[in-house]
Amino acid sequence: MRARPEQLYSPRAIGFADGVRLRFAALALFAACAAPTPLPAPEPRLEAACDALFTRALADNAAIGTLGSLLDAAPKRLSGSQGYDDAVAWSLQRMRAMGLANVRAEPVTVPVWERGVETAALVGDSAPLRVAALGGSVGTGAAGIEAEVVEVRSFEQLAALGEAAKGKIVFFNRPMPRALRRTGSAYGEAVPQRSNGAVEAGKAGGVAALVRSMTTAIDGHPHTGAMSYADGVPQVPAAAIATADAERLSAALQRGPVRVRLTLTCASRGEGPGANVVGELPGSERPDEVVVVGGHLDAWDLGRGAHDDGAGCVHALEAVRLLQATGLRPKRTVRVVLFANEENGLRGAKAYADAHRDEAARHLAAIESDAGGFTPLGFTCSLRDAAAEAVRRRLLPLQDFGAGAFLPGAGSGGADLGPLLALGVPCFGLVVDGQKYFDYHHTAIDDLAAVHERELALGAAAVAFAAFALADG
Amino acid sequence: MRARPEQLYSPRAIGFADGVRLRFAALALFAACAAPTPLPAPEPRLEAACDALFTRALADNAAIGTLGSLLDAAPKRLSGSQGYDDAVAWSLQRMRAMGLANVRAEPVTVPVWERGVETAALVGDSAPLRVAALGGSVGTGAAGIEAEVVEVRSFEQLAALGEAAKGKIVFFNRPMPRALRRTGSAYGEAVPQRSNGAVEAGKAGGVAALVRSMTTAIDGHPHTGAMSYADGVPQVPAAAIATADAERLSAALQRGPVRVRLTLTCASRGEGPGANVVGELPGSERPDEVVVVGGHLDAWDLGRGAHDDGAGCVHALEAVRLLQATGLRPKRTVRVVLFANEENGLRGAKAYADAHRDEAARHLAAIESDAGGFTPLGFTCSLRDAAAEAVRRRLLPLQDFGAGAFLPGAGSGGADLGPLLALGVPCFGLVVDGQKYFDYHHTAIDDLAAVHERELALGAAAVAFAAFALADG
Repeated sequence: MRARPEQLYSPRAIGFADGVRLRFAALALFAACAAPTPLPAPEPRLEAACDALFTRALADNAAIGTLGSLLDAAPKRLSGSQGYDDAVAWSLQRMRAMGLANVRAEPVTVPVWERGVETAALVGDSAPLRVAALGGSVGTGAAGIEAEVVEVRSFEQLAALGEAAKGKIVFFNRPMPRALRRTGSAYGEAVPQRSNGAVEAGKAGGVAALVRSMTTAIDGHPHTGAMSYADGVPQVPAAAIATADAERLSAALQRGPVRVRLTLTCASRGEGPGANVVGELPGSERPDEVVVVGGHLDAWDLGRGAHDDGAGCVHALEAVRLLQATGLRPKRTVRVVLFANEENGLRGAKAYADAHRDEAARHLAAIESDAGGFTPLGFTCSLRDAAAEAVRRRLLPLQDFGAGAFLPGAGSGGADLGPLLALGVPCFGLVVDGQKYFDYHHTAIDDLAAVHERELALGAAAVAFAAFALADG
Repeated sequence: MRARPEQLYSPRAIGFADGVRLRFAALALFAACAAPTPLPAPEPRLEAACDALFTRALADNAAIGTLGSLLDAAPKRLSGSQGYDDAVAWSLQRMRAMGLANVRAEPVTVPVWERGVETAALVGDSAPLRVAALGGSVGTGAAGIEAEVVEVRSFEQLAALGEAAKGKIVFFNRPMPRALRRTGSAYGEAVPQRSNGAVEAGKAGGVAALVRSMTTAIDGHPHTGAMSYADGVPQVPAAAIATADAERLSAALQRGPVRVRLTLTCASRGEGPGANVVGELPGSERPDEVVVVGGHLDAWDLGRGAHDDGAGCVHALEAVRLLQATGLRPKRTVRVVLFANEENGLRGAKAYADAHRDEAARHLAAIESDAGGFTPLGFTCSLRDAAAEAVRRRLLPLQDFGAGAFLPGAGSGGADLGPLLALGVPCFGLVVDGQKYFDYHHTAIDDLAAVHERELALGAAAVAFAAFALADG
C-alpha cells in the first residue's frame, strides 16, 4: 500500500521516532501559530506600475542597444581621456534625444593617468606573465626592472620577512576566497593587497608590487584597479597579474628563487577636466524634490566597461525611458546622474555632493547601479528600522519579479553615493546576481558580449520601479 | 536645514498630503501590527548542514570538472546512439569511483532516430536558412523538396487558410513572448507549434513544417526538440529554423511569394537498448527509504547538452559527493537516478516508475534538476498546504544562500518525475535563474563554455541540501 503525499510527511513518515511524537505535535502547533503573517498587500497602483515597467523593459529590449551605443561611441572612458569626453558627449546627446530637462555637464576636475607598455616575464622563460599596471601606478622606466620575487599572502607575512623583501618584487598572492557566496565579500577580503600593496612593498624596501588579480576564476586576464601611495613611503610600480600566471609564478617559486623582468611605462599626468552628466524627468507635482538614479560613466581602460559601469549608466537612462514609455510620471523629479571618476578618485561623486549641497534635503533618495548588468535581486538601503520599513513596503511589488531582496543598513549603495549619504540622503544600491561579476571586472573582457539583454533589461526595470516608488510616494 | 533620513520618510516628506496624514498614521499602525512575523528558526542542525554544503561546493569547485568529464566522454548522448552508451559507461564508472552502493544500469527500450543532412534555402537566394530537423521527423528524401511557403502564427490561422496551405511548406513563426519574465512560461506558450506543427501542417495538406526556434534571442542557431505525428494524418518533415532566418524568411514573404528548398535525411530506426543509471548513498538508519535525486542523461544531439541536462546529472552526482565530503550521511538513502530518453520519449522515466512501483511508498521524495546549470533560486514542490509547509520549513536555510524560493503545487519538478508523481511520490524541481536558458536549449552552443563554474556548484549545493533535508527528517 502506498502512502499518499500528506501521509509521507506525517510525523511517522518524516521519521520522528514514536517517542518524540508529542514534541513534533507541539512543534506543528507552534508553527501554525507562528506561520508567517502575509505582508500587507502592496498598493495596487504600485503593483500595476511594477508590472508595466518589467513587461515593457522585456518587450522593448532597448537596454542592450543603448549599452552597445555607449560602448561604440566611447569604448575607453578612463577619467581625463578623450574617451571620457566622448562618453560625456554621447550622454548629453542621448539625454536630449530622450527629451530630458535640464540636461547639462557639471564640471569635475579629475586625475589623469595613462597606461603604457606593460610586460613581464620570468627571467629565462619565454612565456610572458600577463600583467596590467594598477591605476595610478608609477612606471618602471622604459628599460624596466629585474629583480628576485618574494611571495606573500598577507601584509603580516610581508612584515615578518623584515630585510628579506629588500630589493625584491613583492608578489601578493592571496586569492579571493572562492567559498564565499557573495563575490563582493570575497573581493573585499582580498582587495587591500591591490589598494595598499604598493605602500606595503615600498615600506618593506621592495622595488615593485605584483598583485594576484581580483577574481576567483583561474584565467589569463589581468584585472586592473585603483591603488594608492602614502606620504613618506617610496613609490614603487604596481601591477596586477592574471590568476593563471600567479599560479605559475607561485609554482616556480616553490622550486627555487625566481627573477622577474617587469616593464611598465604608465604615468600620472596631473589633473584635467571631466564632468558629471545630469538630466531630469521633472516631477509632476513637486519638481524641486529629487530622486537620483545613477551609475558611473568612467571605466577602467582595459575593456569597454560593459558591466562596470556601462550597465549602471544604461540602467539609469533606461529607467527614465521606461517611465516615459509607460506614462508613469512620478510626482517628484527623477534625476539621472552619470558620475565621473568613480574608478580612480571619486571626484565626480564629491563634485556632485558639493554642487548640490544646498538642495540635499530635497533629495528624497539616491539609487546607484554599480554591480553589473546581471539579473536583479533587490536593493540595499542605507536606512534602518521604521524608515527602512516604510520603503520596504513600497518596494514589495519587486518580489513578484525576483527582485524583492531588501537589505536595510547596507551602506551607501555605491561608491558614488557616499558623499550624498554623508549629507543625509537615503541611499540605495541595486543588488544583482554577482557570481560572474569578477570574471569581467576591470579586464579586457568586460565587453558587450558579457552582458545578457534580458538580464540588463530586468535591472533597468528594477531601477525604474524603485525610482517611481520613491519619487511618487 | 537638512532633514535626517528618518524625517524624509515621515508622512510629510513621503508626500502624503496633510489631509491624509491620519490615514498614513493608521496605515503605519497596521503595518506595525501586521509586520511579518519571523519564520520559525530553522533547526540549527539543518542550518549548519546547508552552510557546510554551500561552502564546500564553492571551495572544491568540483562540479564543473565533472561536467567537463561527462561532455568529453559522451559529447552526443541522444537515446539509442553509441554516445548514449558512452554516457552510461561514464556514469557507472563515476558512481563506482565515488563508492556508491548498488550501482547499476537499469534497462530501458528507447526509440532510435538519426539526424542526417539538413539544409534549406530560399530559391534564388544564395544564403542558406539555418535549420535543424525536429527529433522524430521523417526525412524529405535525399533529393529534398521545394515548395512555396505560407507563414502562420497560430493553428487557428492555419485552419483559416483552408485549401491555401495545400502543397506548401507551413512556416510557424509565432515568437516566444519575450515580455514574460519566466522564460519557461514563454516556452510553454510557443512550443505547441514545434510539438504539433507537423500534425497541423499534415492536416492542412502541407508538405513540410518549418518552425521558428524556441528562443527570445535573435540569432543563427536552430533549436531542435521533440515533435510528434498523429494516427491518420500524413507525416510531413519538420525542422526548426534559426530566429534570425525566420525573420529573414518572414520579411521575404512580406515582399511576395517565396519558395524554399528543404532537404532532411533524418530517419527513425525503430527501437534499441538504453538504460537508466542508478547508484546510492545508503541511509544510516532507514536504508530502505529513498530520496531520488536525478537529471536526464540523454541530450539532443546538436550540442553537448551541457545545460540540458548535463548540469542536472552533475547536480545529482555532485550533491551526493558533497554529502560524502561533508560527512552528512542522511538517515535515509539518497538514490541518484540518471534517466534515459527524456528528450524524445520519456521511456527512462516510465521504466524507472515501472521497475520501482513496489517501493514507491518508500520513496519519500524525488528531486530533479532539468532547468540548466544557472544560479539556483529554490524548488518547486508537488505538495500543497500542510504537507508543503512542513517541507518548506525544512528548506528554510536555503534562504540565506539565495535559493529560498519555494513553489508548492507547481507540478512534477521535471518531466522525468511525472510517472513517480502519478504513484504519489512528492516531487521537487530545482528552480534556477533562467534568463539565458533558451539561448542554449537544444542547440549546438549548449556546451561547457555556457556553464559557469560557480553557478553550477551552487546548484549542486542546493540539490544536496534539499536531499539531506528530506532524507534526514
